[in-house]
Amino acid sequence: MTKYTQVFLGTAFSSKTPKEVQILRDYLFCVNADGMIEQTVAPEDAEYQTLLDAYQGKENFHRLAEGQYILPGFVDLHVHAPQWAQSGTALDIPLHDWLNTYTFPVESKFSDLNFAQDVYQDVVSTLLANGTTTVLYFATVHKEASILLAKICAEKGQRGLVGKVVMDHQDNNPEYYRDQDTETALADTEEFIIAIKELAKSTKQGVYPVVTPRFIPSCTDEALQGLGELATKYDTYVQSHCSESDWEHGYVQERYNKNDAFALNDFGLLRDKSVMAHCNFINDADADLFAETGTAVCHCPISNAYFANSVIPIAHLHAKNVEIGLGSDISGGFSPSLYDNARQAVISSRMLEDGVNTNLPAEERGVPNSRITINEAFYLATAGGGESLSLPIGRLEASYAWDIQIIDTKLASAKLPIYQANEDLLDVFQKIMYLARPENIREVWVQGEKVHSRMS
Amino acid sequence: MTKYTQVFLGTAFSSKTPKEVQILRDYLFCVNADGMIEQTVAPEDAEYQTLLDAYQGKENFHRLAEGQYILPGFVDLHVHAPQWAQSGTALDIPLHDWLNTYTFPVESKFSDLNFAQDVYQDVVSTLLANGTTTVLYFATVHKEASILLAKICAEKGQRGLVGKVVMDHQDNNPEYYRDQDTETALADTEEFIIAIKELAKSTKQGVYPVVTPRFIPSCTDEALQGLGELATKYDTYVQSHCSESDWEHGYVQERYNKNDAFALNDFGLLRDKSVMAHCNFINDADADLFAETGTAVCHCPISNAYFANSVIPIAHLHAKNVEIGLGSDISGGFSPSLYDNARQAVISSRMLEDGVNTNLPAEERGVPNSRITINEAFYLATAGGGESLSLPIGRLEASYAWDIQIIDTKLASAKLPIYQANEDLLDVFQKIMYLARPENIREVWVQGEKVHSRMS
Ligand SMILES: [Zn+2]
Ligand SMILES: [Zn+2]
Repeated sequence: MTKYTQVFLGTAFSSKTPKEVQILRDYLFCVNADGMIEQTVAPEDAEYQTLLDAYQGKENFHRLAEGQYILPGFVDLHVHAPQWAQSGTALDIPLHDWLNTYTFPVESKFSDLNFAQDVYQDVVSTLLANGTTTVLYFATVHKEASILLAKICAEKGQRGLVGKVVMDHQDNNPEYYRDQDTETALADTEEFIIAIKELAKSTKQGVYPVVTPRFIPSCTDEALQGLGELATKYDTYVQSHCSESDWEHGYVQERYNKNDAFALNDFGLLRDKSVMAHCNFINDADADLFAETGTAVCHCPISNAYFANSVIPIAHLHAKNVEIGLGSDISGGFSPSLYDNARQAVISSRMLEDGVNTNLPAEERGVPNSRITINEAFYLATAGGGESLSLPIGRLEASYAWDIQIIDTKLASAKLPIYQANEDLLDVFQKIMYLARPENIREVWVQGEKVHSRMS
Repeated sequence: MTKYTQVFLGTAFSSKTPKEVQILRDYLFCVNADGMIEQTVAPEDAEYQTLLDAYQGKENFHRLAEGQYILPGFVDLHVHAPQWAQSGTALDIPLHDWLNTYTFPVESKFSDLNFAQDVYQDVVSTLLANGTTTVLYFATVHKEASILLAKICAEKGQRGLVGKVVMDHQDNNPEYYRDQDTETALADTEEFIIAIKELAKSTKQGVYPVVTPRFIPSCTDEALQGLGELATKYDTYVQSHCSESDWEHGYVQERYNKNDAFALNDFGLLRDKSVMAHCNFINDADADLFAETGTAVCHCPISNAYFANSVIPIAHLHAKNVEIGLGSDISGGFSPSLYDNARQAVISSRMLEDGVNTNLPAEERGVPNSRITINEAFYLATAGGGESLSLPIGRLEASYAWDIQIIDTKLASAKLPIYQANEDLLDVFQKIMYLARPENIREVWVQGEKVHSRMS
């Protein structure tokens, strides 16, 4: 009976369906040497007492304290790691100007590996401290610095999916920040893919290369075509931005006379392993194409308020069976927390449903049936993210990775408002989702390894 | 030269105008025995070195560490203290149903002073830990528990303005939770006012009674009339809810054939010391009446997403010279942090400007010129709140109270992304406003007294 590497005893929350949260009260979670959940055992199961007797008191047995709860680690599907350096600033101008005025100058500094090291160490640690165990990252155009980001993820124990950004279009990118030419962009991407696949061999939790055209405006047709071919050749993930703002959506219409989704698909960039950020302006045909190809939408609600000119209809897209996850979009979104983004996802959906303009009568103001609940926002941050990446993460079930966060609701410095010993656990869950702060996140585990903990 | 009770040396941020933040770099802040700022001294001022020589090294001299900054304490103009018990839950139904299904049952429990003590201690401490130094509170209908809340504010050092809630309408309130009758409601209010004025005599930072009709639907005309008279008789603050949702706005139209603002004014409830929560649906005539009477609007952006069916046009109302402050509206809003609410105020204003519905063309989607900046949101949380209450708070200037929060941007567990030794201080300010967490708030002072500090 010393079969399991770790055994946890505690109450946990995990998505059953997009709308329903399952409460696993006083469960045992048995984790094997590969960091996978081998089984979850309910108190009423026959084996429960036997397991308890076998592991209780041992060093690898973890009984949660009263007031502590387990949530799956969060999956952040859209982070620009270099932009952490400007997070919280530069939120005052439209997307196109924002890129050229603030963002490209910051990203261009990542040719300096020392600077990259400082910022990338911080952003990975910060995301872990916020309960985020898996991240789909944009790095910069620089191959070496992008490899460095993957190495830092590997060392810190975060499951990192990293893309060297491609932006080879000579007219649409500044001279000081772009790929030298299309050929170099593709060669660098291929070398990057090979390097990360090599790094992955020694990384328990996995690191993955991601084919990453920044977005259509920044790339030539040749680069988009070549990247689609590389994605197929190496069976990699693909990420980009899709139909984000009026400007970007309009640009692609003008260039191809079609929406981003169909244009990206023409280049072989919509795959089961593809995740497209934002997608505010996709129409039903685009959504069907996403569902057919297994392409996921990454919803970035905070960022969208600044740069997407609208609220994406998440409830509608869910009903159309599109896979959807959540993204912080650092630094289009200022917050490194998917708690903040889950809260904003609910808020934005309410504002889409009710509308915003008080000068309009209620019945003309919003879009009925657009709201999502905090349960659905939690799903986006966990199971939805896992499904978007086709990885066994985001749920607390057998055959899923032990990627979790332990939340303390009774921490003296950040006590949640729970006043009944027998408070309804769905209320506790909601209080956690709406009120937890990084300091409530006491431990974070990825693939069965503790990667973050707070003592004080 | 031992004239001052406390002297602080550090860099601070304070609103110059609603749109401009003033940077007080390496200033000396001299605080007197009454807890008021007697003077602020810039490094280039003649007196600076003399003061430094006189106070440096003394116990009452506080030099901020590198990476620490001073902000004014925040002024929260709308908190339902009892609702802290349900914060983060019960956000799924419209205002009218929400009150009856969740909120009145919770508030009715505050007849129990032990329960009230538990929750009120927590909410006052929690708000202080979030940097909120002045709060305009709704308590419940219970006179004793409402007095208890004011006592807890007095003890913990928070500047509390507290209202015993009046809801005497026999048809519009549940039998288990309302004033016994109109006469009792008014008598209890008067006794409450007298008790708080007595308590105030021994409270350095001040506590204030607030005449508090819950909102028009919950009160009879006689109660509203009587409360207006009590406000005049005792020259008290007045607070209520105004034009919050389609339902509430429509109810008042039906009852009086006028908007809330004019109805409240008829009862003598719009005064310089009046603060009205939400006000989403006030029109230009209402706004003019607010400006004329000195009545302030309390903007509650998080709550509004759930219950107000719209975004209030803050930029427009500011242009019309209405005084505006910020409110968390616990628990219509889930967050006890005015940082969270300042962030949402900016986000909501962007969504009002750009609109939400992707099916509309850009030019028909939103309301142009509606955005506010983070500087303006900061103003709402500080100086705007002070002006709304006609109190000398919310600015770091001579003759203002020493109500401040000290923010540490370099805290190991919650480091803000600042990578240049000489980073632009307006960028530092924005990073604080967008990214600071309660753990970054190391000390909170009210009226020259330290009321909160974190060691670890
Ligand atoms: Zn992005
Ligand atoms: Zn309220």
